[in-house]
Amino acid sequence: MDNQAKKTALRGISYGLYVIGTKVGDDVNAFTGNWVTQTSFTPPLVAIGVKKGTNSSEGIHESGVFSVNVLETGQQDLATAFFKPMSRVGNKFGDIEFSTHTTGSPILSDALSWFECKVVHEYSEGDHVIYIGEVIDAGVNREGKPLTLQETGMYYGG
Amino acid sequence: MDNQAKKTALRGISYGLYVIGTKVGDDVNAFTGNWVTQTSFTPPLVAIGVKKGTNSSEGIHESGVFSVNVLETGQQDLATAFFKPMSRVGNKFGDIEFSTHTTGSPILSDALSWFECKVVHEYSEGDHVIYIGEVIDAGVNREGKPLTLQETGMYYGG
Repeated sequence: MDNQAKKTALRGISYGLYVIGTKVGDDVNAFTGNWVTQTSFTPPLVAIGVKKGTNSSEGIHESGVFSVNVLETGQQDLATAFFKPMSRVGNKFGDIEFSTHTTGSPILSDALSWFECKVVHEYSEGDHVIYIGEVIDAGVNREGKPLTLQETGMYYGG
Repeated sequence: MDNQAKKTALRGISYGLYVIGTKVGDDVNAFTGNWVTQTSFTPPLVAIGVKKGTNSSEGIHESGVFSVNVLETGQQDLATAFFKPMSRVGNKFGDIEFSTHTTGSPILSDALSWFECKVVHEYSEGDHVIYIGEVIDAGVNREGKPLTLQETGMYYGG
């Protein structure tokens, strides 16, 4: 296989950019991710890819829950804020406010919309764990166009 | 859970639009799909969601292989051609030319780029089967911007 062709072709997959959260014991954690797709309508399932060995991946594995915060076009700064580990202070990561709903995973107050999931299956053969979650709660904060990875000029894939 | 909020939030996931092919015995099959994400770099893995009970899903299950053709912005017609079943005549679906490479899955000559996979895992609890494939071959036909689902005004999710 031509390694450069593999990279280019895989970077042809289009993505959004999300803040994915989880519950870690009595704490919460969140990271920026783009490997997200729905995989079933009934029940509503989504698959996410999470880097193996990270606090977030271990948190999702332990708690069995995660949230996906859909960001709005223009909210790149909100996405990149979670490139580095963010400690919770009360109901904030820095100055970024969140709340919790059904699973205890963080829901960002400024996200366009969000859904939270209960893990029903995981597959961990690669360098990322694939968590398949059933959507058990969801909310919409406002109408808007979602942030895409393409808009940011960044990529994660290849 | 608020069903309308769930739909809206899940439709906030951003996608491309692909022609996904497989080998079915000595024949080939292809359909239009958007539930595609990479899920590992090493080995390179991707996850796809394929409607249960379709010829394509059964084909992938039986053959253990699939291809993903990345389309270019403006190629909506090429995508929608595969909304209906297309019979192969020689190396064409109608007037759409394809070839085969490593797995025998169809590679569209007009695609921007493509990769083909060997199924390493499947999960079939929902109304779609999630196939996780290891990328074993890939090619790039030209430089270009990928077709997004948003561009087409269609959606499949919610």
